[in-house]
Amino acid sequence: MSETGALTQEEQTFLRPFLPSHACASSASEGPIQDSRPPAKPDDRPFVTLTYACSLDSMIALAPGARTTLSGPETKAMTHYLRLHHDAILIGAGTAAVDDPGLNCRYPGATLQDQPQPVIVDPNGRWDAKDKKASRLAAEGSGKAPWVVARNGASSQEALRQSGGDYLLVAGDASTSSMAWLEILQSLKRKGIRSVMIEGGAKVITALLAQPELVDAVIITIAPTFLGQGGVSVSPMPGTANGQRTNAAWLRQASWRQFGADAVLCGTLQA
Amino acid sequence: MSETGALTQEEQTFLRPFLPSHACASSASEGPIQDSRPPAKPDDRPFVTLTYACSLDSMIALAPGARTTLSGPETKAMTHYLRLHHDAILIGAGTAAVDDPGLNCRYPGATLQDQPQPVIVDPNGRWDAKDKKASRLAAEGSGKAPWVVARNGASSQEALRQSGGDYLLVAGDASTSSMAWLEILQSLKRKGIRSVMIEGGAKVITALLAQPELVDAVIITIAPTFLGQGGVSVSPMPGTANGQRTNAAWLRQASWRQFGADAVLCGTLQA
Ligand SMILES: NC(=O)c1ccc[n+]([C@@H]2O[C@H](COP(=O)([O-])OP(=O)(O)OC[C@H]3O[C@@H](n4cnc5c(N)ncnc54)[C@H](OP(=O)(O)O)[C@@H]3O)[C@@H](O)[C@H]2O)c1
Ligand SMILES: NC(=O)c1ccc[n+]([C@@H]2O[C@H](COP(=O)([O-])OP(=O)(O)OC[C@H]3O[C@@H](n4cnc5c(N)ncnc54)[C@H](OP(=O)(O)O)[C@@H]3O)[C@@H](O)[C@H]2O)c1
Repeated sequence: MSETGALTQEEQTFLRPFLPSHACASSASEGPIQDSRPPAKPDDRPFVTLTYACSLDSMIALAPGARTTLSGPETKAMTHYLRLHHDAILIGAGTAAVDDPGLNCRYPGATLQDQPQPVIVDPNGRWDAKDKKASRLAAEGSGKAPWVVARNGASSQEALRQSGGDYLLVAGDASTSSMAWLEILQSLKRKGIRSVMIEGGAKVITALLAQPELVDAVIITIAPTFLGQGGVSVSPMPGTANGQRTNAAWLRQASWRQFGADAVLCGTLQA
Repeated sequence: MSETGALTQEEQTFLRPFLPSHACASSASEGPIQDSRPPAKPDDRPFVTLTYACSLDSMIALAPGARTTLSGPETKAMTHYLRLHHDAILIGAGTAAVDDPGLNCRYPGATLQDQPQPVIVDPNGRWDAKDKKASRLAAEGSGKAPWVVARNGASSQEALRQSGGDYLLVAGDASTSSMAWLEILQSLKRKGIRSVMIEGGAKVITALLAQPELVDAVIITIAPTFLGQGGVSVSPMPGTANGQRTNAAWLRQASWRQFGADAVLCGTLQA
């Protein structure tokens, strides 16, 4: 199942303060985590890590649907290391639709038990489990079958249940079809998910950058390239104070490290 | 004249491979530079360092004219250290108009002789030396009086010459008022400038990211904040190949280091 290299001890030490506290020894990791980081405060939701890879101009893809390589081998390995340390990984319907991602962990030594639970937020039933990469990997025993977050009363698809997946039903705002992130996270916790790595895409990231109270850690990979105007960009709405624009978001405890040619930034969102 | 702290030895070592080769011992620096970096290849133009500070969403200001703090004390010190190691610093008329920057070097121990020559690219005579911060600093002996890059035949302003400044006249494209960057750089070289640090703003940076043959080093400060949609953004036009969008620019020899809460990325532009 391994497709990536392993992280060095220094790289693991760099990431550790930002990992969920339950992340612990596994066949593929380096021993129990010793730090005393408290669990995410309200106990009704999982530890949330927001993570994505972007260019210097904050683009995460050249265009919607254009497969874009940003991470080098070292940051690709980091992504799989992070997946190993989270119970679930979550993406939006947009990413599921255009990228058909595998959503499994390919870190050296990762067993089926180590695999994170894939979760797709798909209020309009755009993602069909049939013929999808994640479903194929689940059938092969190289990953878990995805869960789909849908609105209460959504019509369910047979293919999902057949592949071993499941639905999480969340009340939606009927007028906008949008679901509250707190409710999505609470429904994950009720299913036993202690930590979730939210991987994109642009709409999901932008929404969560504006809800710092729900996000426990942010881990951003920055590749030394410019994708250029018109790409899929991550930039939240700015704030305002006294009629003036203010910064949209701030990271605290910012901690940077070079991984190959890329940088990794870890931090927490200022409330 | 000093307003910033000094860089640590490790920080200086990190920057050194990207400094112009002539940058050498001065009262304020750390001894002669030993590396054998070749001078910028064509000898008719200065060594060009493109440098700016941006947010995670690649914004360099909250809005045009809104003074925006991005750099922390450590990267602010770095900017002044870089100014100490360049013969000139250059900005566009947009930045000169809205920010009224001082354009001097406030690194510890910097003497008047160490001061970089400020250069403003101002084809339409928007910048008037009168009552400007850079002119005041020059009058106080804390900086040099600016040079203005104007088109051949432009009407010159008395205030500039009175303040000790000068004009660089460059042929313009009469239809667009835009001047070729190669000609601007060549005119600087003819005036004895061996290295120039190009500091912004957005239009200037975007134009030069698309001309890698003119840029010898890129030094970007990234602050761990999002300024948010609608700010002054740096993102060049993408490329195309076989009808598909391609990356707008790539950095080679990418070298990252944390300075305070910010990251500094040094590299060279891929031709
Ligand atoms: N570089 C990276 O790290 C990275 C990672 C992932 C994705 N990407 C890129 O990102 C792009 C896709 O981004 P995107 O913004 O189009 O899509 P996205 O963020 O993946 O998905 C957005 C969609 O998910 C659903 N959704 C998300 N949050 C919801 C909520 N709270 N309530 C209800 N529905 C919700 C909605 O589906 P409906 O539209 O059906 O309502 C929404 O339009 C692709 O180009 C992909 O390659 C890059
Ligand atoms: N964070 C940072 O590091 C940083 C640094 C500097 C500036 N900034 C910000 O950047 C913003 C200003 O950016 P901007 O894009 O508006 O202005 P700019 O890039 O500073 O100046 C652009 C103007 O300079 C002239 N110009 C530049 N290149 C030229 C050429 N090749 N030929 C002829 N004229 C040329 C033109 O003047 P005309 O319009 O008269 O033709 C052009 O419109 C401000 O908000 C400032 O705070 C941020």
